[in-house]
Amino acid sequence: MAQPLPVSPLASPLPALGTVPGVRLGAVAAGIRYKGRTDLVVAEFDAGTTVGGVFTKSKCPGAPVDWSRTALKGGLARALVVNAGNANVFTGKAGVETCRATAEAEARLAGCPATEVFLASTGVIGEVLPADRITAALPALHGALTEDGWEAAARGIMTTDTFPKAAVRKTEIDGVPVTIQGIAKGSGMIAPDMATMLSFVATDAALPAPVVQAMLSSGTVHSFNAITVDSDTSTSDMVLLFATGKAGNQAVNSADDPRLAAFRKVLNDLLLELALMVVRDGEGATKQIRVRVTGAVSDQSARVVAKAIADSPLVKTAIAGEDANWGRVVMAVGKCGEPADRDLLAVAIGGVTIAREGTVVEGYDETPVVAHMKGQDIDIDVDLGLGDGKSTVWTCDLTHGYIDINGSYRS
Amino acid sequence: MAQPLPVSPLASPLPALGTVPGVRLGAVAAGIRYKGRTDLVVAEFDAGTTVGGVFTKSKCPGAPVDWSRTALKGGLARALVVNAGNANVFTGKAGVETCRATAEAEARLAGCPATEVFLASTGVIGEVLPADRITAALPALHGALTEDGWEAAARGIMTTDTFPKAAVRKTEIDGVPVTIQGIAKGSGMIAPDMATMLSFVATDAALPAPVVQAMLSSGTVHSFNAITVDSDTSTSDMVLLFATGKAGNQAVNSADDPRLAAFRKVLNDLLLELALMVVRDGEGATKQIRVRVTGAVSDQSARVVAKAIADSPLVKTAIAGEDANWGRVVMAVGKCGEPADRDLLAVAIGGVTIAREGTVVEGYDETPVVAHMKGQDIDIDVDLGLGDGKSTVWTCDLTHGYIDINGSYRS
Repeated sequence: MAQPLPVSPLASPLPALGTVPGVRLGAVAAGIRYKGRTDLVVAEFDAGTTVGGVFTKSKCPGAPVDWSRTALKGGLARALVVNAGNANVFTGKAGVETCRATAEAEARLAGCPATEVFLASTGVIGEVLPADRITAALPALHGALTEDGWEAAARGIMTTDTFPKAAVRKTEIDGVPVTIQGIAKGSGMIAPDMATMLSFVATDAALPAPVVQAMLSSGTVHSFNAITVDSDTSTSDMVLLFATGKAGNQAVNSADDPRLAAFRKVLNDLLLELALMVVRDGEGATKQIRVRVTGAVSDQSARVVAKAIADSPLVKTAIAGEDANWGRVVMAVGKCGEPADRDLLAVAIGGVTIAREGTVVEGYDETPVVAHMKGQDIDIDVDLGLGDGKSTVWTCDLTHGYIDINGSYRS
Repeated sequence: MAQPLPVSPLASPLPALGTVPGVRLGAVAAGIRYKGRTDLVVAEFDAGTTVGGVFTKSKCPGAPVDWSRTALKGGLARALVVNAGNANVFTGKAGVETCRATAEAEARLAGCPATEVFLASTGVIGEVLPADRITAALPALHGALTEDGWEAAARGIMTTDTFPKAAVRKTEIDGVPVTIQGIAKGSGMIAPDMATMLSFVATDAALPAPVVQAMLSSGTVHSFNAITVDSDTSTSDMVLLFATGKAGNQAVNSADDPRLAAFRKVLNDLLLELALMVVRDGEGATKQIRVRVTGAVSDQSARVVAKAIADSPLVKTAIAGEDANWGRVVMAVGKCGEPADRDLLAVAIGGVTIAREGTVVEGYDETPVVAHMKGQDIDIDVDLGLGDGKSTVWTCDLTHGYIDINGSYRS
């Protein structure tokens, strides 16, 4: 974009960030694409740090996704290198070579195998990412990493994001205090030019790699995998969770261990907070929308129905226009192919039941619903009346701002 | 909409329409929703007219869809009643009763069983459609039906359409001249407020009902079922084909009979012409887009990939911005879950191959592609390099006009 975008009206303030013992971060302006702003971020982790990861399901993933997916097999992480502005996607052998050169350069600085360096890139697709600009910038950047570098990192990974995204939680494992702190970027769940989603979370808890992976995988189901801005899926999405072990708790070997219950709860809470920040920075967003579907034949079926509603351009434009257009919700339920019976369906907006058993509620008074539609947080509840399946999905409205951002020329 | 919409820049002129022997039509302003314009259309067919139909796959269909789907079982049609402005969807028992009262009133006028009267409605969802306004208007309307009523019918079924849609073809069966003539409405393949798609086609050919059904079913696969404006599926979509038999050709008992080859070809051609008119009146459309996918593992897989591209808000906004953003095409291929291999993929825009085998073509010159993007007809070709499966889908771009039309309040 030639002009900086105005900050989202739904922007969340940056919380007071602390440190995560065993993690040092920093950012620098490497001139990869943007002028006069940071676009290269490094995080270094103490030896013994375990890692879990969740990646895009795209069949056309970027080279950094391939690299990090392979690195994850070892379960250990010593460094993370992230650049903004060039996704290194659809760049053929040159893209693979850039990954190898970047990881090897950082591995020399961190004193670890290249297979313990994780990579992530977002930005334009199909342009070669010049490895030399990155490798030239790494030594000075690596030398300046600090435990206080979280805000710099949150800002350095932004592309079309209009505000930096971070969240922090404190909890205990077995009575030992631990910290979880994370950053995210994304403005549009997906938007392969400039807005693909990344999130990096670190904790000082001591957790074996399989436990880290299990907790992250289940935690993303109801957070990062439950948001949608425009139904488009990125080639570069990645969420990584690092556990440095510096808190000194006794390692717990199962994600289901009751000693991890509190940790799991705050981790899930933090992941959802970060995910909702991405929705709240959705391209052109003026309202956050929660779609909750109950009464489906299964949770999976409820998820499909909820996503159909959340992805419907007609539902999203109606909400942008502050129109409680429940007929479009009915349409979206009907279109998605999941089991549904028109004559059992109930639709509520803002907690007010509008339609039930195939027709509008007798004496339906639109007044409280109209008032709800004028707010920034819109709640849509659909009950299918068929079973116990339920799912909640978050999205934002579809406005002229989305067209402005995505309909303008790249250069 | 309070203000009439400007006519689509892609509008097609109304062709010179003739008559179809055995069909009489007319339209009247019944005051169902609109002021000062026709909104009720009737067509009467001579005894012996056969019919085929294709309906929305929505799980929440409108009452008229249920009615006509049931009526179709008899294979015979004597009348069609269509209203614009109220879809009679999600109206419970009142909606069913309106259908019954409407069909019975028209059946008395046409002298046929109510089960030979077909019904279609589009417009707002969830408001009761008053049967009495329709039944009060039917006698005068029925009395004024004429063979020349096609243009009046094409205009009377419009909702947010910005131009009337009709097409005509002449061909022969066994040396006997026959006519096929049809009308359509839709502006947005789907948009349940006001723009749901309907099409009614009639021929004077003599064709048994199973042949009519077979030809219509196969003809819609590559026409009405190969277009998308916004990925939303209506509760009211319906295409009906009526065959009056007045041409006097010998009945042919199989749709695959070589004597029907010419008829099938022009029927398919007419269905595609009508379907493309709906795309060209797509809400806010400024460009028509053809997405052709080849090299898929099957035709069905190619269709899913083509629809993912055609429905992607990022692809559609890029085209609105005249940006040959092939990276977004790659993203859409990757997201849809169908077999694809990044390193075998080729993408061409306007006939110019831009990317091949996982990377941009060496020495790619954007100049001819930039020129192509400035036109009104955009061609995207994707070859997956995996097999022989192929499919073509048509859509339009996503512009501020779409947001204007769908983000404004209903009343």
